[in-house]
Amino acid sequence: MVTDVLNNGDTSWVLISTILVLLMSIPGIIFFYGGLAKKKNMLNTMFLTLIAFSIVSIIWVVYGYQFAFGPTINGLIGNPLNLFLNGIGINDLHGTIPTVVYIAFQLTFAGITAALVSGAVVGRMKFSAWIVFISFWVTFVYIPIAHWVWGGGWLQQMGVIDFAGGTVVETCSGLSALAVAILVGRRKDQTLLPHNLGYTVLGAGFLWFGWMGFNGGSGLAANGLAGMALLISNTAAATGLITWVIIDTIRDGKPTVLGALSGAVSALVAITPAAGFVDIGGGMVIGIGASIVSYYAVTILKPKLGYDDSFDVFGMHGVSGIWGTIATGIFAVAAIGGVNGFLHGNPSQLIIQIIAVVSTIIYSFIVTFIIAKVVDLVIGLRVKESVEVEGLDTHVHEETGYRL
Amino acid sequence: MVTDVLNNGDTSWVLISTILVLLMSIPGIIFFYGGLAKKKNMLNTMFLTLIAFSIVSIIWVVYGYQFAFGPTINGLIGNPLNLFLNGIGINDLHGTIPTVVYIAFQLTFAGITAALVSGAVVGRMKFSAWIVFISFWVTFVYIPIAHWVWGGGWLQQMGVIDFAGGTVVETCSGLSALAVAILVGRRKDQTLLPHNLGYTVLGAGFLWFGWMGFNGGSGLAANGLAGMALLISNTAAATGLITWVIIDTIRDGKPTVLGALSGAVSALVAITPAAGFVDIGGGMVIGIGASIVSYYAVTILKPKLGYDDSFDVFGMHGVSGIWGTIATGIFAVAAIGGVNGFLHGNPSQLIIQIIAVVSTIIYSFIVTFIIAKVVDLVIGLRVKESVEVEGLDTHVHEETGYRL
Amino acid sequence: MVTDVLNNGDTSWVLISTILVLLMSIPGIIFFYGGLAKKKNMLNTMFLTLIAFSIVSIIWVVYGYQFAFGPTINGLIGNPLNLFLNGIGINDLHGTIPTVVYIAFQLTFAGITAALVSGAVVGRMKFSAWIVFISFWVTFVYIPIAHWVWGGGWLQQMGVIDFAGGTVVETCSGLSALAVAILVGRRKDQTLLPHNLGYTVLGAGFLWFGWMGFNGGSGLAANGLAGMALLISNTAAATGLITWVIIDTIRDGKPTVLGALSGAVSALVAITPAAGFVDIGGGMVIGIGASIVSYYAVTILKPKLGYDDSFDVFGMHGVSGIWGTIATGIFAVAAIGGVNGFLHGNPSQLIIQIIAVVSTIIYSFIVTFIIAKVVDLVIGLRVKESVEVEGLDTHVHEETGYRL
Repeated sequence: MVTDVLNNGDTSWVLISTILVLLMSIPGIIFFYGGLAKKKNMLNTMFLTLIAFSIVSIIWVVYGYQFAFGPTINGLIGNPLNLFLNGIGINDLHGTIPTVVYIAFQLTFAGITAALVSGAVVGRMKFSAWIVFISFWVTFVYIPIAHWVWGGGWLQQMGVIDFAGGTVVETCSGLSALAVAILVGRRKDQTLLPHNLGYTVLGAGFLWFGWMGFNGGSGLAANGLAGMALLISNTAAATGLITWVIIDTIRDGKPTVLGALSGAVSALVAITPAAGFVDIGGGMVIGIGASIVSYYAVTILKPKLGYDDSFDVFGMHGVSGIWGTIATGIFAVAAIGGVNGFLHGNPSQLIIQIIAVVSTIIYSFIVTFIIAKVVDLVIGLRVKESVEVEGLDTHVHEETGYRL
Repeated sequence: MVTDVLNNGDTSWVLISTILVLLMSIPGIIFFYGGLAKKKNMLNTMFLTLIAFSIVSIIWVVYGYQFAFGPTINGLIGNPLNLFLNGIGINDLHGTIPTVVYIAFQLTFAGITAALVSGAVVGRMKFSAWIVFISFWVTFVYIPIAHWVWGGGWLQQMGVIDFAGGTVVETCSGLSALAVAILVGRRKDQTLLPHNLGYTVLGAGFLWFGWMGFNGGSGLAANGLAGMALLISNTAAATGLITWVIIDTIRDGKPTVLGALSGAVSALVAITPAAGFVDIGGGMVIGIGASIVSYYAVTILKPKLGYDDSFDVFGMHGVSGIWGTIATGIFAVAAIGGVNGFLHGNPSQLIIQIIAVVSTIIYSFIVTFIIAKVVDLVIGLRVKESVEVEGLDTHVHEETGYRL
Repeated sequence: MVTDVLNNGDTSWVLISTILVLLMSIPGIIFFYGGLAKKKNMLNTMFLTLIAFSIVSIIWVVYGYQFAFGPTINGLIGNPLNLFLNGIGINDLHGTIPTVVYIAFQLTFAGITAALVSGAVVGRMKFSAWIVFISFWVTFVYIPIAHWVWGGGWLQQMGVIDFAGGTVVETCSGLSALAVAILVGRRKDQTLLPHNLGYTVLGAGFLWFGWMGFNGGSGLAANGLAGMALLISNTAAATGLITWVIIDTIRDGKPTVLGALSGAVSALVAITPAAGFVDIGGGMVIGIGASIVSYYAVTILKPKLGYDDSFDVFGMHGVSGIWGTIATGIFAVAAIGGVNGFLHGNPSQLIIQIIAVVSTIIYSFIVTFIIAKVVDLVIGLRVKESVEVEGLDTHVHEETGYRL
């Protein structure tokens, strides 16, 4: 009994502290994207994240958590017994965790995933359309996948391992971004000319910091596994950063700050599902791989395919999320997280990971495409050409980012 | 005994971690206000917060904590037994908390409240006058009210409930801001033309994050109540943000980022006293109400009354602080924090809340007015007109914010 | 046994939470230095920190931790038994702490110390030379000193007290900065014209926040000592800030924001070794002293000696680090940290502190000088004059910080 009390206390605090830390991921996305935006669209870019996080925050307590984590209905969706959190007391437990703490922890994942998607449509999407789109998206895309992987759904039953969201957060946001980017269409001016790279550095700093909260907290305990997840995540990020710097140097002779940050973020994406399952060597390989596949996606695949994903949400989060989820099935080692992968004699884990990632790809892309299509038909996804050219800040919000 | 040790350990860490998080509220105020300032006054604006926090930090350990939290003298003020913290050992306890941890926790509240006041006088107050004013203000305004509500004083004895500072922090800073703004007088140019809204977004992000520390930590335990306070605070902030966006859209057709942030902050203000006492539905109503009353105060009441409160410290913190403190007496429900409010059959709690907020209004306004008047008579509150026109950064500090 | 489990749980969480907080010191250095840089060198300045932290992150898990904290070989260096962390399990303990948590905690100290050094060479050092230099530097300078003071080496055996890095982090980075600054040589334009002081304020905010993590976490427990270390660090920082403001006002009549931040940082430097050993009064004296000695070093000593340390890493971190380490031997009081200093009847502690700081000075300076000299001979330390004049961002990275 003493041990129970102890674990509750410790575990609650891990999650509460983690929630505080990973809340900084929201300013992280705001400044990462805000710095990459053209000056004329900066406030609109930041606003997409702000409003998405706020909408998801409300949906989550009204019905989101309940559908994602209620008792499973055939592995597909949760049974929403507690709308508005009615009937959930402050002493109720979800496993060994106070339920309300777990709800808050999961809220941050949902909010951040929604915010990530906005990076694909920056500079041309109607503000009203974004609000409607993201409300449906979190309901029909995010919540079901969260249920499948973490809420007792069919992928969890099948045995998928996804420490902090390689499928739910990364692959899902990346493929959703691709679908909505295709429907919104290409910008007239597709150059990536960041108006304030300092902001992007700041955002990356918050993301790096926040990611330690995601990955360090996802073991739900303050122990060696949390420390190991932290250490592996940091190692992967550093490895990814250096890898991209090397690629930049080899190909162009000039290492760029934006490239370095891209390497760190793509590696953090890829290590997300793996952080509690692989060792230091595995983490390094995953980080190196992430920089390579995302570099390829961003600089070669995107121009070839011709879609306009403003800030490479698909190229970074989608592609490295897929890589990380599969790599978890390759490099997982039982000494860390209790599960072996392909390299340690358990090929079936790799197959499960592939099933999970393919399901996430297909479901995210198709359902997002349908939602965006409906929103397009009903209220239109895209601003007028003159608004796009002159900038959304002035036209949509009557504000200006700077008076310098 | 094991349980005691456990609680001590857990509780200490809640507070220590919370202190770390809510320290970010200081950069929060610095960047929220700094971004709203005109470019020519940016550094002076930031400096008011920096120096206020530093002065309060020293006063707090020299005599502030002792007067606020020493054994009460007739419910009015604490008995300062431990000047310079003499006699307080690292193993001493305040309740179940190490006293030094509790001192540090309370220090952050005092520092932030002082910094908030500066928003009313930006762009025209003498730097020396601010230093003298804020030293007296924390001594004669903040410390007594903190004693009354949290330190065993007459309002606490009467049974007021104020989870994280609806009276002590919010109503007090708002009314003090109003008093000093009136005495400093109106600026020649009262337009609100934020020079860098990105900074304001950043500040709001830190404040949102820091507020989770205030409200999540104020239960002094890592348990379901802390999680619930977090969840309710976040829900209220999101609700307030969306409410202000809706009002903006209805009245002007253009939702603004500044409006969205104002909605979030006013809701966070209003949920501060309530976070550990109301449920999710109550939190939403409080958030909606906060945006409505603060919107009214800022856009209708202020122009009508004609005072010049530069960044609406009264309109945001004062008005929503009053609303939140009273609303706590309406919506409190025993299942969350052990106390029922008006709606749950306990009208006397509402009366106590009204007494507390009215006392705070009267005391804060009058004593701040007297202090500011004395400072005005002795050294003068206001810079010369030429300094105001050309900007305080160059004249007062011989510095410039940007060389771009 | 219950107590053991409890302590492990608590202690792990102290460190994990601390790691999260002090990771923000990296953006702290990035923005403190980035804001001080000239606009044309901003990205390069930020990049030096980013790449240094990434390199150290990898070295630390590959061999750094093992050499620093492996079983001592004659007090000089650790025995690297666990390259790539092989053989370290998630349940292994270092004292009462999971080893992996302790590795991550120590990693942040190493990364931050390396990043600090970059401030001395901003605006003129080759990017490739920095990468090579810092890799050797962390290996041959940081790791041995960390072993001597914290890893069971000869200074620890002698009884040196250094709570959070007065020698290892501060004196070491300051003297290393001086050595490499001398070898890189003076810039053509040595004026300090910060291009964005808001960034510097932001960086200082992160550093203040992160320092609470360093100093609060270094007692390795969530107890009164952690609270006291926090409180003393904050008090010292506030005292240092106000001291520098007073000096500025007396000498120039104009208090500056940059001066205020310099006072806070120099005081935080000086309180680093002392935070867990001195009382509030001692902390204040150390803070005041730090501002005085660093002010002297920066405004009088540097022009006299003629070296070009771009952002005064030696003047701030070196000089105040030396002062703090010695002052710890003067003001330490057994009631706080179990050790008395000179003022409390234990002169031998002062002698030990002096030996430690002199050893650190000599070793850091000489070995850094040798490393930098070798790098200079092999690949050259300095960019071409035209690159220096036109700015490193465009030439080295083909990027520009702003498009405003």
